[in-house]
Amino acid sequence: MSKSSEKVAWVAIDTLERFMVDVFKGAGVPEEEARICADVLITADKRGIDSHGISRLKPIYYDRIKAGIQSPITKVEIIKEGPTSAVIDGHNGMGQVIAKRSMALAIEKAKKMGMGMVVVRNSTHYGIAGYYLLMAVEAGMIGITGTNARPSIAPTFGIENMLGTNPLTFGFPTDEEFPFILDCATSITQRGKIEVYDREGKDIPSGWVIGEDGKARTDTHQILYDLKIGKAALAPLGGIGEETAGYKGYGYATVVEILSAALQNGKYLKMLSDIQDGGKVPINLGHFFIAINIPSFIELDIFKKITGDILRALRSSKKAPGAERIYTAGEKEYLAWLERKEKGIPINENLQQEILGLKEELALHQYRFPFEK
Amino acid sequence: MSKSSEKVAWVAIDTLERFMVDVFKGAGVPEEEARICADVLITADKRGIDSHGISRLKPIYYDRIKAGIQSPITKVEIIKEGPTSAVIDGHNGMGQVIAKRSMALAIEKAKKMGMGMVVVRNSTHYGIAGYYLLMAVEAGMIGITGTNARPSIAPTFGIENMLGTNPLTFGFPTDEEFPFILDCATSITQRGKIEVYDREGKDIPSGWVIGEDGKARTDTHQILYDLKIGKAALAPLGGIGEETAGYKGYGYATVVEILSAALQNGKYLKMLSDIQDGGKVPINLGHFFIAINIPSFIELDIFKKITGDILRALRSSKKAPGAERIYTAGEKEYLAWLERKEKGIPINENLQQEILGLKEELALHQYRFPFEK
Repeated sequence: MSKSSEKVAWVAIDTLERFMVDVFKGAGVPEEEARICADVLITADKRGIDSHGISRLKPIYYDRIKAGIQSPITKVEIIKEGPTSAVIDGHNGMGQVIAKRSMALAIEKAKKMGMGMVVVRNSTHYGIAGYYLLMAVEAGMIGITGTNARPSIAPTFGIENMLGTNPLTFGFPTDEEFPFILDCATSITQRGKIEVYDREGKDIPSGWVIGEDGKARTDTHQILYDLKIGKAALAPLGGIGEETAGYKGYGYATVVEILSAALQNGKYLKMLSDIQDGGKVPINLGHFFIAINIPSFIELDIFKKITGDILRALRSSKKAPGAERIYTAGEKEYLAWLERKEKGIPINENLQQEILGLKEELALHQYRFPFEK
Repeated sequence: MSKSSEKVAWVAIDTLERFMVDVFKGAGVPEEEARICADVLITADKRGIDSHGISRLKPIYYDRIKAGIQSPITKVEIIKEGPTSAVIDGHNGMGQVIAKRSMALAIEKAKKMGMGMVVVRNSTHYGIAGYYLLMAVEAGMIGITGTNARPSIAPTFGIENMLGTNPLTFGFPTDEEFPFILDCATSITQRGKIEVYDREGKDIPSGWVIGEDGKARTDTHQILYDLKIGKAALAPLGGIGEETAGYKGYGYATVVEILSAALQNGKYLKMLSDIQDGGKVPINLGHFFIAINIPSFIELDIFKKITGDILRALRSSKKAPGAERIYTAGEKEYLAWLERKEKGIPINENLQQEILGLKEELALHQYRFPFEK
């Protein structure tokens, strides 16, 4: 969420979504695929995950297409296929398109066989993992997905950025208004959250970032610079060292690194830096997608009821003094959606400038945003 | 590992294993199944996981069989089956036998179809998850397993013990001497580790345990009592509150709770207490087992090489000042094995007494342990 001192403009969801479709089209993405790309980003914004929504439109997609390191035309090539399995080469096309086709294929296989798993190489940023979990959930399935990413986490007892923030994510249908969606990185935090502390001029909490001396660093502004040049690294979930079990988060990040590369003969670790020899290069990300067909095990309604019962019991358990409520995974995102479907998406000043820049560059004069003078 | 001030006796592996087979047989477990039960426990001891080896023979298995809350005769009933899926009822038999048959079935399905998943209800403690991961790895597969357990973790912002320590575990074959085996709970720590601090008369680190006031507790001795009566709870991986991302560990513990109950119409959360109305009752645990056949995606040798390369790169990355080495998951267990295959298994005084008690009770006079007078 943006802080109150910034000038935030709330913009209607459908306006932003149409604008993104037009920007992707303007960058050369075919219409149908531009819709998929925009849908993935707007789904992040709807769910309150501002770090992965329209804020990524320019730096992560538009600029990379323009720089020629990501193709607006997506060629999804199936390299190998079996009854439950497939290996896909994404040829550095649009990550959202590659990922959506891959999860759709995993779901199709799971529908027939009970389970499906699709692994991908040579892909690009696929947006929020939760989007693909929601696809599985809507098909009455369990969804699991993960992706590798630019190196940023240091191993336990290490100080070098080696592993991506490597989300390991799970989605389950429930009998509630919203599904269980655990969409999280295997680091404690990520760059976007540190940037929020920087804008607020605050030190980050101790334990998020490890410095070259092996100790926690909290000097937010310098950290943002040092993370880029490899003089600081993110700590894995569980923290620095072994005392609070950082080796577990490090282990899960490694699991995702392996699942995102070893089954698809893909790139990993330092190979995933998008800068090499001073120039921008394709990022060659790998992903994996698993779908599990619930009715192969049990009636869907029973599964949903038990899952709902577990989540309700957790939420109604004894709260810590002063705690207002206990959440379950996906609940905060649902609450964000309830607010945003009325109010729209908050766009901070930085992002307003980026949007106006894209509008100008692509001559999208049909848009008139509330933050325009 | 046991501390030096205790009188520890090192006992040969094969002696302990044969003894355990005889104890299980003495409790009524059929010979072939007694061998499986003992193999699971001795594998934990071989790998240095003392909390899950012979130390569990009496309290977790023998005593429960004697108390009539766990059956020495294991009836594995397949409730539902598909090409990649099966639901099994373990009828409160021996958890190791139920689990071994379940992973074997998942592997068999994965061999044919590429993937297999077996879920289990009405089971009992299955020992180390790593045992079943190793089965998959030896079959050239990826293994994934988890189990629910007696409630002990509090949800984020909660103080009540709701979730089990719920391991979420992964195994991968590599081209090295040992596979990648991430066998860990989704809490920061577990009871056994707190007991070690108690024996040493030390406070536990802050963050492992949450008290009724919502704050970290470190008063080790009282904690051990309060955990039992629900006046203290374990913190999830990531810690208390949200600042260091405890909601992620809480989320993963919830994933395991759901996967261990909702697909098999099993018990969960508070239902898994083994004490009800003051008496011991069956624990009705649930487990899940997933096998993924690597050659369905890629040649096994390529997978092993890439996985090995990732692990070697992590281990040889820049170390924190003062850190001797960086480990990867399963490496410490392999190092324990290298030591123990020569020296045997360390048996502390407490355990010596338990072993002698069982020997006496079952008249296993053929055994003469080095710690006997």
